[in-house]
Amino acid sequence: MALDDTHDAARQSFVASANGHADFPIQNLPFGVFSPPGGAPRAGVAIGDMILDLEAAAEAHLFCGDADVAARTAKGGALNAMLALGTGPRRALRTQLATLLEAGSRFEAQVTPLLHEATACTMHLPARIGDYTDFFAGIQHAMNAGAMFRPDNPLLPNYKYVPIGYHGRASSIVPSGHPVRRPNGQRKPANETVPSVGPSRNLDYELELGIWIGPGNKLGEAIPIREAADHIAGFCLLNDWSARDIQGWEYQPLGPFLAKSFCSTISPWIITPEAMAPFRVAQAKRPEGDPAPLPYLWDQADQAEGAMALELEVLLMTPGLAAKGLPPHRLGLSDARALYWTPAQLVAHHASGGCNLNPGDLCGTGTISTTEVSGYGSLLEITRGGREPLTLASGETRRFLEDGDEVTLLARARRDGFVSIGFGACTGTIHPAP
Amino acid sequence: MALDDTHDAARQSFVASANGHADFPIQNLPFGVFSPPGGAPRAGVAIGDMILDLEAAAEAHLFCGDADVAARTAKGGALNAMLALGTGPRRALRTQLATLLEAGSRFEAQVTPLLHEATACTMHLPARIGDYTDFFAGIQHAMNAGAMFRPDNPLLPNYKYVPIGYHGRASSIVPSGHPVRRPNGQRKPANETVPSVGPSRNLDYELELGIWIGPGNKLGEAIPIREAADHIAGFCLLNDWSARDIQGWEYQPLGPFLAKSFCSTISPWIITPEAMAPFRVAQAKRPEGDPAPLPYLWDQADQAEGAMALELEVLLMTPGLAAKGLPPHRLGLSDARALYWTPAQLVAHHASGGCNLNPGDLCGTGTISTTEVSGYGSLLEITRGGREPLTLASGETRRFLEDGDEVTLLARARRDGFVSIGFGACTGTIHPAP
Repeated sequence: MALDDTHDAARQSFVASANGHADFPIQNLPFGVFSPPGGAPRAGVAIGDMILDLEAAAEAHLFCGDADVAARTAKGGALNAMLALGTGPRRALRTQLATLLEAGSRFEAQVTPLLHEATACTMHLPARIGDYTDFFAGIQHAMNAGAMFRPDNPLLPNYKYVPIGYHGRASSIVPSGHPVRRPNGQRKPANETVPSVGPSRNLDYELELGIWIGPGNKLGEAIPIREAADHIAGFCLLNDWSARDIQGWEYQPLGPFLAKSFCSTISPWIITPEAMAPFRVAQAKRPEGDPAPLPYLWDQADQAEGAMALELEVLLMTPGLAAKGLPPHRLGLSDARALYWTPAQLVAHHASGGCNLNPGDLCGTGTISTTEVSGYGSLLEITRGGREPLTLASGETRRFLEDGDEVTLLARARRDGFVSIGFGACTGTIHPAP
Repeated sequence: MALDDTHDAARQSFVASANGHADFPIQNLPFGVFSPPGGAPRAGVAIGDMILDLEAAAEAHLFCGDADVAARTAKGGALNAMLALGTGPRRALRTQLATLLEAGSRFEAQVTPLLHEATACTMHLPARIGDYTDFFAGIQHAMNAGAMFRPDNPLLPNYKYVPIGYHGRASSIVPSGHPVRRPNGQRKPANETVPSVGPSRNLDYELELGIWIGPGNKLGEAIPIREAADHIAGFCLLNDWSARDIQGWEYQPLGPFLAKSFCSTISPWIITPEAMAPFRVAQAKRPEGDPAPLPYLWDQADQAEGAMALELEVLLMTPGLAAKGLPPHRLGLSDARALYWTPAQLVAHHASGGCNLNPGDLCGTGTISTTEVSGYGSLLEITRGGREPLTLASGETRRFLEDGDEVTLLARARRDGFVSIGFGACTGTIHPAP
């Protein structure tokens, strides 16, 4: 992917908090939807601790050409129309935003009144999510989870050929910070003869990346792998909260359903492919003996730079840790390079039979676990299905999540010679079942 | 459910084709979205061979009170806002429509110019489908399909406790008449060692009912079973086209994905609960030894009248039959009474963990097969996985569907003393893979 001067490490912003910001330096410039205090939802751009009102900037004629086209679609509290435009206008808008916001910008006086303190604003979902699909591309997670059910044969025969995925529930996706209510449901532990109904006893998180769909395809038409990256409008963090006891009882033969659909949390900023360009890396070489991807999933450029060097962290804050003034417990430090399929492969597979993807659709990668226990992306894996509880610095133990627990996902992209960027937090706190 | 004079068998319409119409007598009055020749999509009501322009009728002040409220929401080419209103306004609108359209109506002169010939119009999806869920409530189908994989244990232990379902793809749902393109995909027959990619060789239909969601629930709140029927806005036919070879290779462990998401066809009219009221029947008594529904799925009124007496027919027209002037082959004559769960049970279960259902969401029942081969709802069952091909009157044989085949689903509700109603056709023709 082409790098340009928006990636220049020397560029600073006149928004002082952006310079050295963990997530949103001027090299990031993600898009989202926010409400300023007392205001209606509108499109914005994160810059340091501030949010630029993109709609107001467009109305102030701060953009021109393709960038203006892109900025003017960002209306009505959802970015679907902007996502539909694809790479060109989005890149143009990024370039002009970098110029507007850079240190010494001749637009500083015009732009400054359009900036809002992020902590005073409310973030919303950045787009209306038409359909949500969750993949299973974290091979270590697939093996860890599979080993609990099939110790001798953790990976099913299709795994290395098919980017396994399933349809998820779009309506219950919420932005970071939204409460997560523990679901009630049917569960039947192995030592009981009939199921009972009640609050999930095995509530878990899953560390995933989300992939926002851009232009998409028409029903009946595939997306060739070499074009698939052009249909990705950006990335976010995704916590695919999972009720393991409900899942274990309900999931055969048609897959997870209510164990997942009670809530999924995403980080609210769309991190663009342009912002991620410096951090794209070659897809990890498949282990000896693994089949090559089938031709519809194989593209030289995608193999060369379709993966992402992206560190992923999971933090747990509990009532006990908070009461003692202790920092959050790091549950995992994982890496997006552990994915067996690239985002472009997931998109190409999804459309390969003619299923139409629309702007604002969301795909999850599946839980991303590395080969180390310290890189596991769920409590199911860390505590081996709850059999080996964690002990925290507060003295509390955890098999699964308790009411009051707060889980935060973070992402950090790094590369020598470039300013590192983050995704912003993806946080949810467990509230008791109704 | 209360019956009123809209169900009066003696009532006739001044629209002559409605009287004795197989689907749309004045006792039905379903809602849909149509385009008249050269016009934009708008809300309509089927009456015989005609469609009443509901938006124009509202603009002509033909309704009052709650009915007017309901009619005025039916704008913008989608009925979501009308579905959100729930039972009261919908029932009021039905009552006034019956008066407007009855024989001897004093509104005949005003209404007549608002009627369009249905054959000249194009039908659309009646609502924007936010989320689509497919259940598996046809127990005979579950046993027939399960027996192919697990001859000794066709039903899994959860089946009689959990209304099994999974999330489906909303974007690829199309109205009756839309072409159905055979999907390409990965498939690996048992006698091959590695998968290949190409057009599905085992393309099938599935006979299902669709359930339209009305008001729905907020995230985190359940819908009690005694209120669940109030969240059902109507019914349609649903053909859940299925590529069995793709499904067999991809579906473990997370369920069907691309084998289903290439296309699903629905009949375009929303048949209201009011129209179906005379045809509601008691849920079939569970066989001796089956567990009672868990309390959150059990309601006396639902058990007494939550099921539907609805005959379901599947017709196959092939190029060979058409060339010889032969009638379509009846693939099956099934009955909605074969469902193990009522529509209200499916809705209550879906929301039981707090998953939010929204107006215009769609739920499929799952394939509805009776205990007789003549009542099976898919070719998978009829031809025993393709091993026992059908021979048609044209001399053609069918394991699964061939390009050019047209499958039509029909529904007919009957009860002595009442005018029978139908759902309109749910038709799709198989086009070659790209």
